[in-house]
Amino acid sequence: MKVKIQDTFWTRYRELVRTEMIPYQWKVLNDEINITIERERNDDSIPNEKSHAIENFRIAAGLKEGNHYGWVFQDSDVYKWLEAVAYSINEHMDEDLKSLADSVVDLIAAAQEEDGYLGTYFTIEEPERKLKRLGESHELYCAGHFLEAAVAYYETTGNDTVLKTACKLADYIVRHFGKEDEKIHGYDGHEEIEIGLAKLYRITGKNEYLSLSKYFLEIRGTNPEFFHIQNAEDGKKPLIVGMDKFPYSYFQNHMPLLEQESAEGHAVRLVYMCTAMADVAAMTKDVNLLNACKKIWRNIVDKRMYITGGIGSTVIGESFTLDYDLPNDTMYCETCASVGLVFLAGRLLENEFVGEYGDIMERALYNTVLAGMALDGRHFFYVNPLEVVPEKGKKDPTKSHVKSVRPEWLGCACCPPNLARLLSSLEKYIYVQKDDSIVANLFVNCESRFSVNKKLVTIKQETEYPWNNRVLFTVSSKEETDFTLGIRIPNWTDKYTIRLNGQDCNIETKQGIAYIRKVFKDDVIEIIFDMKVEIWDAHSSVRNNIDKIAVSRGPIVYCMEGVDNGSNLHLLSIGKNAEFTYQFEKNLLGGVVVIKVNGYEQISNSDRNANLYQKHEKVRGIQEKELTLIPYYAWANRGENEMQVWIRCER
Amino acid sequence: MKVKIQDTFWTRYRELVRTEMIPYQWKVLNDEINITIERERNDDSIPNEKSHAIENFRIAAGLKEGNHYGWVFQDSDVYKWLEAVAYSINEHMDEDLKSLADSVVDLIAAAQEEDGYLGTYFTIEEPERKLKRLGESHELYCAGHFLEAAVAYYETTGNDTVLKTACKLADYIVRHFGKEDEKIHGYDGHEEIEIGLAKLYRITGKNEYLSLSKYFLEIRGTNPEFFHIQNAEDGKKPLIVGMDKFPYSYFQNHMPLLEQESAEGHAVRLVYMCTAMADVAAMTKDVNLLNACKKIWRNIVDKRMYITGGIGSTVIGESFTLDYDLPNDTMYCETCASVGLVFLAGRLLENEFVGEYGDIMERALYNTVLAGMALDGRHFFYVNPLEVVPEKGKKDPTKSHVKSVRPEWLGCACCPPNLARLLSSLEKYIYVQKDDSIVANLFVNCESRFSVNKKLVTIKQETEYPWNNRVLFTVSSKEETDFTLGIRIPNWTDKYTIRLNGQDCNIETKQGIAYIRKVFKDDVIEIIFDMKVEIWDAHSSVRNNIDKIAVSRGPIVYCMEGVDNGSNLHLLSIGKNAEFTYQFEKNLLGGVVVIKVNGYEQISNSDRNANLYQKHEKVRGIQEKELTLIPYYAWANRGENEMQVWIRCER
Repeated sequence: MKVKIQDTFWTRYRELVRTEMIPYQWKVLNDEINITIERERNDDSIPNEKSHAIENFRIAAGLKEGNHYGWVFQDSDVYKWLEAVAYSINEHMDEDLKSLADSVVDLIAAAQEEDGYLGTYFTIEEPERKLKRLGESHELYCAGHFLEAAVAYYETTGNDTVLKTACKLADYIVRHFGKEDEKIHGYDGHEEIEIGLAKLYRITGKNEYLSLSKYFLEIRGTNPEFFHIQNAEDGKKPLIVGMDKFPYSYFQNHMPLLEQESAEGHAVRLVYMCTAMADVAAMTKDVNLLNACKKIWRNIVDKRMYITGGIGSTVIGESFTLDYDLPNDTMYCETCASVGLVFLAGRLLENEFVGEYGDIMERALYNTVLAGMALDGRHFFYVNPLEVVPEKGKKDPTKSHVKSVRPEWLGCACCPPNLARLLSSLEKYIYVQKDDSIVANLFVNCESRFSVNKKLVTIKQETEYPWNNRVLFTVSSKEETDFTLGIRIPNWTDKYTIRLNGQDCNIETKQGIAYIRKVFKDDVIEIIFDMKVEIWDAHSSVRNNIDKIAVSRGPIVYCMEGVDNGSNLHLLSIGKNAEFTYQFEKNLLGGVVVIKVNGYEQISNSDRNANLYQKHEKVRGIQEKELTLIPYYAWANRGENEMQVWIRCER
Repeated sequence: MKVKIQDTFWTRYRELVRTEMIPYQWKVLNDEINITIERERNDDSIPNEKSHAIENFRIAAGLKEGNHYGWVFQDSDVYKWLEAVAYSINEHMDEDLKSLADSVVDLIAAAQEEDGYLGTYFTIEEPERKLKRLGESHELYCAGHFLEAAVAYYETTGNDTVLKTACKLADYIVRHFGKEDEKIHGYDGHEEIEIGLAKLYRITGKNEYLSLSKYFLEIRGTNPEFFHIQNAEDGKKPLIVGMDKFPYSYFQNHMPLLEQESAEGHAVRLVYMCTAMADVAAMTKDVNLLNACKKIWRNIVDKRMYITGGIGSTVIGESFTLDYDLPNDTMYCETCASVGLVFLAGRLLENEFVGEYGDIMERALYNTVLAGMALDGRHFFYVNPLEVVPEKGKKDPTKSHVKSVRPEWLGCACCPPNLARLLSSLEKYIYVQKDDSIVANLFVNCESRFSVNKKLVTIKQETEYPWNNRVLFTVSSKEETDFTLGIRIPNWTDKYTIRLNGQDCNIETKQGIAYIRKVFKDDVIEIIFDMKVEIWDAHSSVRNNIDKIAVSRGPIVYCMEGVDNGSNLHLLSIGKNAEFTYQFEKNLLGGVVVIKVNGYEQISNSDRNANLYQKHEKVRGIQEKELTLIPYYAWANRGENEMQVWIRCER
């Protein structure tokens, strides 16, 4: 499968990654740019003077003298940058960038130790503590990111060094972890190596990589005390202050994975873990592992996910909390967690063609993931709130993580490069193919080639999604080819029509996917979704959203911003029989559909000098007001202001 | 003025203090009771193994060997206990308790150093750091509590040792602080010494105590860097981890007191500071100081106070945040802060006869202060939420401070003894007198003697307040006495009638106080307040209370509890023309008026398996349901359950 995107909506983002984010991030990694690195929350232990990530490699490689600076997982910023570069030059070759990336590969290889160990913090600062404090060390987490980057870079460029370095590192890990007595019967505090090993297995075919990935998943949670025991044996100061105090569930090692029934702990870790579970399940046909993964998925989707596709309801531990606990103004909803949710949805879809996986992928992608970056590609959110009053983030220290302006960079810089690698590899998520079944999952202008029963089939998608409701598939094949084309029917649409070569047709829909089975040659399939403005209630157990509604159109969730609606958004409401109108505004926010609706503004005691508590007024003073809604992903691009997704509604 | 309380409502509490709290707290201070000391929030640095407070004194006095245990301010628990004992035996002499207290006084005196220094932590552990880290050391805070206790105990018992010890300590402080070059130009991180010095001045007449109290208030905030400079000079590890990182405003030293216009920082500190400002203003006739205090008071009352009289909107720093920021489920509302608000209101009332001071005192006293303890007098809340879902406090670490069951004791045990000393000295707040004007501020069954123009006047109050609306004042004087009797008209009442000796009469009301000026001999004044169920809106800027109402009757704020109304309290609402009924239930919760109201329960998607997000239903499924409300102060006395003060209302 080879997919080439040429899409108004997405190409803008992908060009931004190529022309802005990748060069910008390179400068940041080299401390060559004068920016303010903000802490993602009030916490003195977060390093925010500089990135120093490339310098760490130079020092580890012996090319320079100095100390390591930054988090123990600082290396991963470089790996994710390299992975984004790999995808980017795969789409759009840039020889200068490739040379630069080649030199980074050489630098990484030079920083690798003789035995394969790779990790600048321990190489530079504390070699004696290698693999001795895995709950905090992120050594395998970083390794996993390097393996992902290496596979991507090798696939694009055929660079031999990167593959050799990756295998040497993987072999080191295989030598140190596993069920054999002399090996460590443990795992990393932050899942990721499991994904990296599975990818490396995919291109090398080396069974030991897949086996070790599976081993990490199988042993996790069977020995919840593992990190505590390691920490006690280490006896030295923590690598990350306070992390040794987090509960087992923070690391998802409170019970064996097969027994876990809910999404617990650090949200990014959880989705990375589930991604690996789905990966390994697909490669090993392990039904139990897949079912365990699906159980956690169900809990996320049914009870622990924001309407924006954000996950992680609390700042402490950046964690899940409990079912239906989805506060709008104190949540975490880390950009990386939604990136991970896209990965997970994609992997589940590869296991089973179920439309819901694509629905959730779309929800996360078009809303929280895109909200993670400014339209300029140079400012980033770590935390993605659904309700913001800027003053609160500044004056209430428990909300210090809720920023109302995207910082230029973050002390923990996991999110920006994660965005870059996802956006630049978006073509991987548009179609899924299994044998002679191809499913169109995302709707993006693109031209794609498939090999079906050894025949070459080309499918061209034409659409103005997400703003327009029509998608045209043009299938062409030199020879007649019998296969099944599935098209995901998004869950936000009530009805749709499919026309095959100009004729209305009834198509079988199974688990949210419409399937056309025929002998294709030159065929045109047109699908038109009913894409009206939709309004949503949250489940009544979501306490914060009672009496409120959310607005969407297509995959896009909408919000109100102060710049359009004034401050005190909490005083606004949508009328009982409100009429929504929408219009594409090409000069606004890079071109968006704006929704307007007749609503109300409460005025009764808006006088700031009124008493704090007053006798109840049965009839509120309200006045009509037109409300303007913009796509959630585009908020905070017009200065600091209030924002709100869930809006009060009159009944 | 001598006030003797004999009141159904309050005597129960005061007897509880005498027969339960004082003996119970004594056992806790001596580690003689097997209880679970809970941390008030998830924070490993909170000592919770034992109290050790008395043992610390024994060690400091050289009677035992060992180390200090507990907070640097652990001594203050003993002082507040002693103060409560003083008030208690003043009301109800108990020779055994007095002997015990005398021995505690002797122990404290023995722990005092030659030069007057008193503070077990520094005497035992780090004498070289005395007065060197005042931002965290609480040395003057503890001293202030000792001075308060000493004055109370001396006034009750005439114990000479306690007064001498207090003066010796005060003289030590006078020698070390002040504007002279050789003295420290600083102050304690936690205000309290200012109150203690003012009290000691009152009974000793020693000007230097009052001057130093004033000095502490005047210098505060003129040198915001003071603590940082001291910490840097000290250079050793903090006495309280993290406290050196708090902003200036946490300590109220961000600007001079006369310039402060809002209530900032740690709520208890702020109200203690304001209490001292009002004290010193009264004693020195300093109008500027009084006006500065009133400015901060206005900000609290108009913009930063919960309807329950709770203050402090956030857990980090136990602090105020910003105007109208009053979240119901993450707030702090520390019991001590409302105790302090009662102190402050009382001091302001002594400065000026303004009904509002009594209104707020009543609000704090009958609601948050009383909620701070269980009906059994042996379990205590530190934090007083207005909305609780027990699971959230357990599973969301940012809500670890929001407990749904009162602990037996707390790692930081400031609140229980603060409750004890306030409740056992309640007689101080019932009347205020200035020359020939006496104002009845609280409505409590009591008999009181006043000296007016050198004549003895007795006033008897008879009432079933807070459950009943009638208060009878019987004034008797041997000789005819010309004076003014004021009666506070509570702000929750719309109308009232006053009958003087059986005759309706029109009385002048000024600033919320009705005044009767006459020549009294034997007179009966009956006042009947309109005491119906009242429903309240919050100011529309309070985002969390939009579309919600609170219910009160008289001074009592009501709440719904799960035990009466089932769980999912957020699904309940009060109807548009709801009719409230109420009834006194003598066997419930020690005897309370219970309110019932016809309301609704939303049922539309209460099915726990419904989708997390569903197309909006214009017409909600609701069913009628009778709601039961109990006094807020009495919540959490019938097992763990949900609780909610602000209730959704239909419009």
